[in-house]
Amino acid sequence: MVNPPFNITRAAHAEYRVTDLGRARAFYVDALGLIETGRDDDCLYLGGLEERDQYSLVLRRAPSPGAGHLAFRVVAPDDLDALAALHAANNLPLRWIEPDSLERGQGRALRVQDPSGLPVEFFCEMAQRERQLQKFHAYRGAHIMRIDHFNCQVPDVQRAADWWTAALGFRCSEYTVADPVPNQPDRLWATWLHRKQSVHDIALMNGIGPRLHHVGLWLQDTHSVLRACDILASLGQAGAIERGPGRHGLSNAFFLYLRDPDGNRVELYTSDYLIPDPDFVPIRWTLSDPRRATFWGSYAPRSWFEEASPVEDIRTSRLLPTTAPLLSGRPDTVT
Amino acid sequence: MVNPPFNITRAAHAEYRVTDLGRARAFYVDALGLIETGRDDDCLYLGGLEERDQYSLVLRRAPSPGAGHLAFRVVAPDDLDALAALHAANNLPLRWIEPDSLERGQGRALRVQDPSGLPVEFFCEMAQRERQLQKFHAYRGAHIMRIDHFNCQVPDVQRAADWWTAALGFRCSEYTVADPVPNQPDRLWATWLHRKQSVHDIALMNGIGPRLHHVGLWLQDTHSVLRACDILASLGQAGAIERGPGRHGLSNAFFLYLRDPDGNRVELYTSDYLIPDPDFVPIRWTLSDPRRATFWGSYAPRSWFEEASPVEDIRTSRLLPTTAPLLSGRPDTVT
Amino acid sequence: MVNPPFNITRAAHAEYRVTDLGRARAFYVDALGLIETGRDDDCLYLGGLEERDQYSLVLRRAPSPGAGHLAFRVVAPDDLDALAALHAANNLPLRWIEPDSLERGQGRALRVQDPSGLPVEFFCEMAQRERQLQKFHAYRGAHIMRIDHFNCQVPDVQRAADWWTAALGFRCSEYTVADPVPNQPDRLWATWLHRKQSVHDIALMNGIGPRLHHVGLWLQDTHSVLRACDILASLGQAGAIERGPGRHGLSNAFFLYLRDPDGNRVELYTSDYLIPDPDFVPIRWTLSDPRRATFWGSYAPRSWFEEASPVEDIRTSRLLPTTAPLLSGRPDTVT
Amino acid sequence: MVNPPFNITRAAHAEYRVTDLGRARAFYVDALGLIETGRDDDCLYLGGLEERDQYSLVLRRAPSPGAGHLAFRVVAPDDLDALAALHAANNLPLRWIEPDSLERGQGRALRVQDPSGLPVEFFCEMAQRERQLQKFHAYRGAHIMRIDHFNCQVPDVQRAADWWTAALGFRCSEYTVADPVPNQPDRLWATWLHRKQSVHDIALMNGIGPRLHHVGLWLQDTHSVLRACDILASLGQAGAIERGPGRHGLSNAFFLYLRDPDGNRVELYTSDYLIPDPDFVPIRWTLSDPRRATFWGSYAPRSWFEEASPVEDIRTSRLLPTTAPLLSGRPDTVT
Repeated sequence: MVNPPFNITRAAHAEYRVTDLGRARAFYVDALGLIETGRDDDCLYLGGLEERDQYSLVLRRAPSPGAGHLAFRVVAPDDLDALAALHAANNLPLRWIEPDSLERGQGRALRVQDPSGLPVEFFCEMAQRERQLQKFHAYRGAHIMRIDHFNCQVPDVQRAADWWTAALGFRCSEYTVADPVPNQPDRLWATWLHRKQSVHDIALMNGIGPRLHHVGLWLQDTHSVLRACDILASLGQAGAIERGPGRHGLSNAFFLYLRDPDGNRVELYTSDYLIPDPDFVPIRWTLSDPRRATFWGSYAPRSWFEEASPVEDIRTSRLLPTTAPLLSGRPDTVT
Repeated sequence: MVNPPFNITRAAHAEYRVTDLGRARAFYVDALGLIETGRDDDCLYLGGLEERDQYSLVLRRAPSPGAGHLAFRVVAPDDLDALAALHAANNLPLRWIEPDSLERGQGRALRVQDPSGLPVEFFCEMAQRERQLQKFHAYRGAHIMRIDHFNCQVPDVQRAADWWTAALGFRCSEYTVADPVPNQPDRLWATWLHRKQSVHDIALMNGIGPRLHHVGLWLQDTHSVLRACDILASLGQAGAIERGPGRHGLSNAFFLYLRDPDGNRVELYTSDYLIPDPDFVPIRWTLSDPRRATFWGSYAPRSWFEEASPVEDIRTSRLLPTTAPLLSGRPDTVT
Repeated sequence: MVNPPFNITRAAHAEYRVTDLGRARAFYVDALGLIETGRDDDCLYLGGLEERDQYSLVLRRAPSPGAGHLAFRVVAPDDLDALAALHAANNLPLRWIEPDSLERGQGRALRVQDPSGLPVEFFCEMAQRERQLQKFHAYRGAHIMRIDHFNCQVPDVQRAADWWTAALGFRCSEYTVADPVPNQPDRLWATWLHRKQSVHDIALMNGIGPRLHHVGLWLQDTHSVLRACDILASLGQAGAIERGPGRHGLSNAFFLYLRDPDGNRVELYTSDYLIPDPDFVPIRWTLSDPRRATFWGSYAPRSWFEEASPVEDIRTSRLLPTTAPLLSGRPDTVT
Repeated sequence: MVNPPFNITRAAHAEYRVTDLGRARAFYVDALGLIETGRDDDCLYLGGLEERDQYSLVLRRAPSPGAGHLAFRVVAPDDLDALAALHAANNLPLRWIEPDSLERGQGRALRVQDPSGLPVEFFCEMAQRERQLQKFHAYRGAHIMRIDHFNCQVPDVQRAADWWTAALGFRCSEYTVADPVPNQPDRLWATWLHRKQSVHDIALMNGIGPRLHHVGLWLQDTHSVLRACDILASLGQAGAIERGPGRHGLSNAFFLYLRDPDGNRVELYTSDYLIPDPDFVPIRWTLSDPRRATFWGSYAPRSWFEEASPVEDIRTSRLLPTTAPLLSGRPDTVT
């Protein structure tokens, strides 16, 4: 693989549309314990205990749920220009965001619609805040450490994966193929791609898309995941628990999937592994391997497979229409 | 309450019928990590890390699954005679078991069929073994500490509860009533009864009975419960996981329900509480309270409500016929 | 053993003298997370998450640190009279406390000076509060569940132990003897005694006395103990950590010893075991067994062995003078 | 910083000299649960649960304890030649190791003596083994996931740090300066350097050197660290526990330091953080900050500061002489 002429470092923040900021705050801050690091009329800025960036999750008031954009950090300002050139050369929609305009504390940013229609942002500079990692007395809720990844549904995973790997330089850690048909090549069902040295910064799954399936938030241990269940339940928000706790075979994650009051989804996630070597041989799973999705065998609810957040057009902020996926079928592990 | 003229101390051991001792051993010993403390041609004797009794679970080879008996310890040999007199006076079937005859290391024992038909054993003397609590290097599997309780289905919970409390001296910690009907008294759906100072030694639930729904095994922490899931799954026995991990509102237990290779059920159980005061005011739940069965809101599979181990006739060792329960209905929390 | 004509159920609450209620509150409530259940001019009333009693720890403003009294619950009001008769017959100081007078919500209470001089209170009735066990969102600090035990230093352990067992009906779970001398009987160094079915409600250790060495607070898991360390340190109160975290061989407890801002000591304690049988054979340790005090081998600081809270005269509220212990020596496990 | 013409990816394995392979195996495999992945007459090859490399710790029979070499992985074979050129240009001792000669399954390797005298190996190719991460039933001991870092003592930390950063391309995450003297520049006491995206691959501390202070092994959670203590103690090896468990302020690690039967040191280590950004601003600590070494305030034993493994001359396999450090003094946190 030839390295692209820019260096993306990691999934950095996501923007969710919420219809009621106060209600969303009760979920993300009061229950889950994310730190509120700033707010203005339309937005709440939230972050984790390990992070220094001003925020890793933005909640923006909007008339309907959805995902505003997925932001990745790059190393240098020049990387933004190289990325703009790449997207322009591929006739993809792009837009420059002035420093500190749409998002507080962020430098010049590039927003694009990727080939699948995902609204992606690249930025280099971000205001920093004091890390809270060792303010143990201020830990609340699920002790969320940091944002980990985005999981997206797209209609053509192979095409999307080619873009993110060949054009953007992401590497694959694990992937799923549709159940093999004799004498036919693998058909890619889903792929886990990373720039930072963990299992993924972005996962692309076959499904109605473009949609953001969930934002993954990283916790230090299983204990914190169980605490999230207890806290949500005692606050009368057990309905937010959609799936889990359980373990994925793929990524080895111990997971819990939650729906925020608007139906946007977050995953509380721990127990994956480090990938320091660039030649890590990706792990292959087949769709119907019962260990893949739920190592312990418990079924996922139908909603988990069918529902996801629609995404915005980067120019109009309107939600994009979606398309049915290329591959049909569904894992046996759905109820 | 007048104290009865005998002193039952606790749930002490259960006997499960299994059709293949080797296969059962692979589940209970190799996967769950119970200690094999003895064996003979027909039985495996198993125990937990905290226990001194020679065993707390007996697996007996039999042509079909089921429960042989549920044993309770009494304080003194005289207690056995007083219990025999009580059961005889109530025209209940009873049988004396000679020391060290049917079960290794056990002194003289009384077996009875309780008013619901449950095969109950009382004993006083049991061979002791060296406690393994501080042999940490020998901990295996789910680090099971001790037997905790029996959970039984009976057709008439109120009648069964009256016997266990008024005649046998058990106290109620928590109970469930069928969904209230205006101007009608509570109808008891299920009750958690104890002699030792934990939430229960025996639970009685409305259902087809007499049947043993599960044997509860106590673990020290949630970590050990999650380990059980991982170990079973990596051994290819994920199918044994029937329900959970999750939290019960009732008893506050963090639970995992497993089916052994014959379908007999065990609960891995932790995070309940101590009840040192005899005047503890029982906690009342209504059947349809969603927090009661599954505090986090996850549904239980149908099998959990419908299936249980039939129990033996203490005289013939044949499985007893069962009867439909008095109360109809089912919690909303079943799939 | 003949049962005494009264029934003590458990260690119920302790009263510590503190010189600054605000400073003590910052430690016990803000850092450790005990629930403040009431306060008046001179006292703060604190409790744990699992408890229903109005309080299990009272902090009373006083000119110097110390322990006001150690309270045990009895089953019935008559038990108080029987206990008064016992103490009067033994010429021990006693005093009746009117309901709701010195301590809020407590019924008629008997205070005595036991044969070692320990200020002991017996009560039967206590105002109840709503249990917080399932208010998981309100858990703070170390998630302290309940009071567990008192640990006292007395000059003559054998004499004290005889009183608490023969006269008061406590049972021994574990004990330590001074290092054996050939052809001489065991000399009792320390003993762990219980009424509730855990390892102890009171421990009596050879030492300068009468003094209260510490109040044991029970936690659900080791995770909560480590949280206490992190929280205290991030609040700038790491100096409160005197010993641990570590494991005792005796009782199997995972422990952490803390000194409150006045030097009174509490133990955060978990991982002991249940003793449902009245004929549990006590476990014998010798003083110099390195596994006894610190299973992992780490030494205890000198302060842990030398310092403890003096106790009050129940009639004058003055601190009692202390006496040197009968047995000399010291475990090798002290620095 | 200009990137060097080679790409080192991570700390990969260490080689300890042990005088008795059987005794060392009892410690590393039977107690700590490292996987034995191979052995020959003179060596045991060990690895962690998350790793694919054939080994990450080599125990080599030798007449005295010490460290054979510290190995780092590079991305491509050419990197080895570039590294050889660098070391040759700096007149540093170097030696080529034929594939599969000294270490099983390893491709062509370069061994050098770095400017401080540390015996460093670089390699690119290593035989892979099946990952054991999801063989949960085979987890043993402390559930060690992977090697994390080397911690070395050198007499001149500033000079060593310059080499590892400017010449080898390591980045600094955290560092300690000697207690500041007014109007004088910082004197570097210790530095934590990384290539993979964790806190460190190598730490360099002021001390008698060159010596290997410890090899850091990464665990998933604090629970596994506590298990190590319990297991070692119940096996009669509590003497191996030198320091901890505790938390470092620096790196935020939850740690436990162990001495193997020969006195070589390993750290069980968890709870550090991810550093995906190359412009992470290093965290500065001063030597006498009490939170730096022991966040909870517990002192380290003198042995931890004074003792370490001498290292080998890469050409003769003889242990190198050591030199006193440039900076004198010692943290106050030593006993």
